[in-house]
Amino acid sequence: MAEFKHLVLAKFKEEVAVEEVLKGMEKLVSEMDIVKSFVWGQDIESHEMLRQDFTHAFLMTFSSKDDFTAFASHPNHVEFSTTFSAAIEKAVLLDFPSVTVKTSSA
Amino acid sequence: MAEFKHLVLAKFKEEVAVEEVLKGMEKLVSEMDIVKSFVWGQDIESHEMLRQDFTHAFLMTFSSKDDFTAFASHPNHVEFSTTFSAAIEKAVLLDFPSVTVKTSSA
Repeated sequence: MAEFKHLVLAKFKEEVAVEEVLKGMEKLVSEMDIVKSFVWGQDIESHEMLRQDFTHAFLMTFSSKDDFTAFASHPNHVEFSTTFSAAIEKAVLLDFPSVTVKTSSA
Repeated sequence: MAEFKHLVLAKFKEEVAVEEVLKGMEKLVSEMDIVKSFVWGQDIESHEMLRQDFTHAFLMTFSSKDDFTAFASHPNHVEFSTTFSAAIEKAVLLDFPSVTVKTSSA
């Protein structure tokens, strides 16, 4: 079965302490075994026009769509989502079964 | 050194044969050893409002920012980018050193 990915691009409001939001996200993920992996990053390279003001990307991986559904409806996630929504100026979410074309041999 | 990720969200033009674009992307990645991993997916889950019309996500991983820079300026990539740009209605690009909070033990 394909892994399932939850991808979020965000631009935070100017007055928001992004570090605090990140800590909350790391806490959420560390508490929930159902999240298989989590990586994030802050754009440092793309042209402003191309990144359309988005500054951060967050990518969570789940073993299955069912695991993602369970995560999304879990009270911990629902609570964090409220905090997150209040912190962002805009966001895009994509949720998809991932197709792996190439993987590192490392 | 942190891995470097190249993330693209896209909405394709209605008349475009997305399969053909995907084939071109897979060919590009398979020809270039510098691309460490490549996964993609088509959104099946997120609410239309949340995904803001974007339908596909593409994520490439490189060993370093230098590797990404070399890839981005490579003639194969430049050529594919022209094809890709002609096929999309809109896109967002983010390029960032990835911070790994959690990885699968598998």
